[in-house]
Amino acid sequence: MPLNPQILLDNRPVGEAMASNFKLVSSETPPLQDGQVLVRHHFLSLDPYMRGRMNEGKSYAAAQALGEVMLGGTAGEVAQSQNPKFAVGDKVVGMGGWQEYSLVNADEPGALHKVDTTHIPLSAYLGAVGMPGVTAWYGLVKIIEPKPGETMVVSAATGAVGSAFAVLAKARGCRVVGIAGGPDKCAYATTELGMDACIDYKLHADASSLSKALKQACPDGIDGYFENVGGMVLDAVLTRMNAFGRIAVCGMIAGYNGAPLPLSYPALILVSRLKVQGFIVSEHMEVWPEALKELGGLVASGKLRPRESIAQGLAAAPEAFLGLLKGKNFGKQLVQLI
Amino acid sequence: MPLNPQILLDNRPVGEAMASNFKLVSSETPPLQDGQVLVRHHFLSLDPYMRGRMNEGKSYAAAQALGEVMLGGTAGEVAQSQNPKFAVGDKVVGMGGWQEYSLVNADEPGALHKVDTTHIPLSAYLGAVGMPGVTAWYGLVKIIEPKPGETMVVSAATGAVGSAFAVLAKARGCRVVGIAGGPDKCAYATTELGMDACIDYKLHADASSLSKALKQACPDGIDGYFENVGGMVLDAVLTRMNAFGRIAVCGMIAGYNGAPLPLSYPALILVSRLKVQGFIVSEHMEVWPEALKELGGLVASGKLRPRESIAQGLAAAPEAFLGLLKGKNFGKQLVQLI
Repeated sequence: MPLNPQILLDNRPVGEAMASNFKLVSSETPPLQDGQVLVRHHFLSLDPYMRGRMNEGKSYAAAQALGEVMLGGTAGEVAQSQNPKFAVGDKVVGMGGWQEYSLVNADEPGALHKVDTTHIPLSAYLGAVGMPGVTAWYGLVKIIEPKPGETMVVSAATGAVGSAFAVLAKARGCRVVGIAGGPDKCAYATTELGMDACIDYKLHADASSLSKALKQACPDGIDGYFENVGGMVLDAVLTRMNAFGRIAVCGMIAGYNGAPLPLSYPALILVSRLKVQGFIVSEHMEVWPEALKELGGLVASGKLRPRESIAQGLAAAPEAFLGLLKGKNFGKQLVQLI
Repeated sequence: MPLNPQILLDNRPVGEAMASNFKLVSSETPPLQDGQVLVRHHFLSLDPYMRGRMNEGKSYAAAQALGEVMLGGTAGEVAQSQNPKFAVGDKVVGMGGWQEYSLVNADEPGALHKVDTTHIPLSAYLGAVGMPGVTAWYGLVKIIEPKPGETMVVSAATGAVGSAFAVLAKARGCRVVGIAGGPDKCAYATTELGMDACIDYKLHADASSLSKALKQACPDGIDGYFENVGGMVLDAVLTRMNAFGRIAVCGMIAGYNGAPLPLSYPALILVSRLKVQGFIVSEHMEVWPEALKELGGLVASGKLRPRESIAQGLAAAPEAFLGLLKGKNFGKQLVQLI
């Protein structure tokens, strides 16, 4: 059996997460038992939710156990199989974790999915045609429920979720305004992702300044907001929400390090009669087939071609992940493992 | 025509509202024109939303114009009529304002409603069988959508809205926990309104202390919260919300004086996948008939007999209103005008 390099959660962050929270080890993979499949990971997905799992105690995701392999989505190829439904060479996605190989009980429902890479690149199943894409779809379609002509705003606009959100919202006849960090990301949002405008939040020192920029970019106000970051950005967007606006709360990455991140004017929820709703896409598996069908079609036809940031080799995963938390990635953050 | 004492908004509050913001005047009521009705007010309703209208600029309610009669709900009797649909002596409710008489164009839809006082006292049409009652109904039925066995919490629990909310939620098989100020209100909430428990927020110096009390009163967590106050109470309740909990935001009276009132941990909306929704009941007139039918039945049968705080005479209205903003009222705040 192959030697399997793995990254474990070694200790929990106090405040900001650091590389020293992780530990790289190698282990022998045990021999396959009946029904099991050995998957060679080609790509590991890095996602903001993982930061929440590094903390102890109540979060929306269960805490990651210390000394265990970091959990994460993976796309790869079947290397060995003791399961009649999977053949060596099959392309598969699953939750293989931060390691080069995973041994999967492939008969468990949802444990391993075969995917077709004829028209869709394997890595896209970790992004636009995977959890991030369905996240964008759920927030837009099921919480925001956009109408043609409405104005949608998305933060972390060029990330895996934001870019899918933009394309899905444009397809529904909405004006889409992104919020991202830096001129390169903003240029990409408008020229490549088709957003009508993109605001560089780094140019704004406070919510009041960002609010003025939003007023300019959203002359008819904001009807739907897809929240990935929290903090100053949420404060600013709230001041521009139209009556009966809807906010899908997917992430608050600005607060993941444990610093208090208050909302300055919650009374605006009442004043503007807003609906603010948090969600986790893994709790809504019933929408995945419909969402993946639309997302797969958009990727296969070239309408959604989200950018990827690819780190090389498992050992690079911790630094890539810490960079993601600071917005250093540009597009979907992946680690290539082969 | 009778001389009509009136209270005008004389100037806008800077920070806390004060008696000097109001001005008592008297005016002659003009003669009736065709279609008009002169109503002698018996009761004036005082409600927290009026504080929002005293401010200039954007709020959920349009600003009250300076120098004009304060707007407000009234219940009274037809004193003179030039309208075939209304006879002298008819009991009516409308938006007559802070004055003893109002001249109403009774053909305008919704301007004046005849009410039946056989089984329901006239004043109840300003409370349990009026706007406050429908407010409670809408938040509970349309936003929170309670299931039997769930735990509901309501702040300002012994007020007009809170007491109706409690009875409506008990009728749906929920555990109901109130939050109110002082031992008398809390005792009333459990013995008279049928709440399962009531927490005196004045015994708690901060959200952490209040959160502990909520844990004790809500051993299974909180599924629905009807928000009337904001601030520390909202912070505390958020920490005890169950996954997929719903919060109906009806008021944030703690912030009406303009002091910043941040929400400490908005990330809990995501962590607990909450829906937080603001609403104004006057924008949902379609539910009023259904809501009033249930509320009228509860009052007529004696199941809902909310307490009233009655100030005597129009001149007492400003002090009664300022007391309401500080929670000095006990039950629905009215001014008796005859």
